[in-house]
Amino acid sequence: MSKNIVLKLAEKRASIREYSNERISLNDVLYAIKTALQAPSGANKQPWRFIIIENPDLKLKIRELCEHAEKKFYESNIAGWFKEWLEKRGLSWRKPFLTDAPYLIAVFADMRAPFAKESVWIAVGYMLLALEERGIASLTYTPPNFEEIRKLLGVPRGYKLEVIIPVGKKLKEKIKEPRMKINDAVYLNKWGVGIEYAES
Amino acid sequence: MSKNIVLKLAEKRASIREYSNERISLNDVLYAIKTALQAPSGANKQPWRFIIIENPDLKLKIRELCEHAEKKFYESNIAGWFKEWLEKRGLSWRKPFLTDAPYLIAVFADMRAPFAKESVWIAVGYMLLALEERGIASLTYTPPNFEEIRKLLGVPRGYKLEVIIPVGKKLKEKIKEPRMKINDAVYLNKWGVGIEYAES
Repeated sequence: MSKNIVLKLAEKRASIREYSNERISLNDVLYAIKTALQAPSGANKQPWRFIIIENPDLKLKIRELCEHAEKKFYESNIAGWFKEWLEKRGLSWRKPFLTDAPYLIAVFADMRAPFAKESVWIAVGYMLLALEERGIASLTYTPPNFEEIRKLLGVPRGYKLEVIIPVGKKLKEKIKEPRMKINDAVYLNKWGVGIEYAES
Repeated sequence: MSKNIVLKLAEKRASIREYSNERISLNDVLYAIKTALQAPSGANKQPWRFIIIENPDLKLKIRELCEHAEKKFYESNIAGWFKEWLEKRGLSWRKPFLTDAPYLIAVFADMRAPFAKESVWIAVGYMLLALEERGIASLTYTPPNFEEIRKLLGVPRGYKLEVIIPVGKKLKEKIKEPRMKINDAVYLNKWGVGIEYAES
């Protein structure tokens, strides 16, 4: 087995908001979900359920509902550093990736399970790396109107929509946002006590 | 690059509660954290902070505090299917892995950041796969007394202890709990609509 593959995949993956209309293989999407299904979960309840959305009309409906909710959210809730951060990146209430990406993966958590949210997001982490391994771009999009989308997809009450992950081919290369180094984020035995570590 | 490595690592990894006293390399632990640091996060706030605990006295103190809290929790909160599930596996309020594992990784979330919890658990997912790649066993242990441990480690208010991950060499092989198949957990376009998929 080659070395440091997980780190290399993690470094390579960036959050992609612009997708080409190139098709991808449904098998690659299922490969990523198969990987996610191996994640640990509270009492092994495996509280995750996945809906793959490929129907163009349904994607459009989801986009419309989300953009309507996002527009209200942007108008009322966003200010300060966050507003600036979004504007610098040209981000707005518009969510074209919801129709441009060939597939959306809606991920639900069974909230009756212990540590449902934690478990589902570990599974999402697994999935992102598996998608990257297959050369598939992704984004973790958390819609404000999660209940509306749950109902639209016929999902029983008690399951919460945690995230919609558009997957596909990126329209263009994107430089990943910078990340902290070990020395910025890791302490030894106590908060504030750094670790001697030379970044390679 | 070899094929299906992420899936293979995910399949191989099981939650390990029994650790040998064999040392592991701190560099391998840092490799996994370096991988976690590459995870996506809300507005790239990177809300994760990691404390690696190697001091034996500190590990013992953490174990004592957690077992005290677990004992109360087990006596008052656990019943029904969950009690049965735990008993079948010999699980109790005793948490020997907190002293037996050579390192504990305490993972904190800066709760002021957007989607702090979601982001941190994606990073945990990345970390578990990177640990497995280096042959290191792990467990996601979520102590009930997270505030007590935060204070013990000198962590500022506002950071929440999400998980303690003991890492080390497993004492013995363990069979992974069974997982759902694609056909149990994945739908197409609508809840309840299965996908044609033959498990290989």
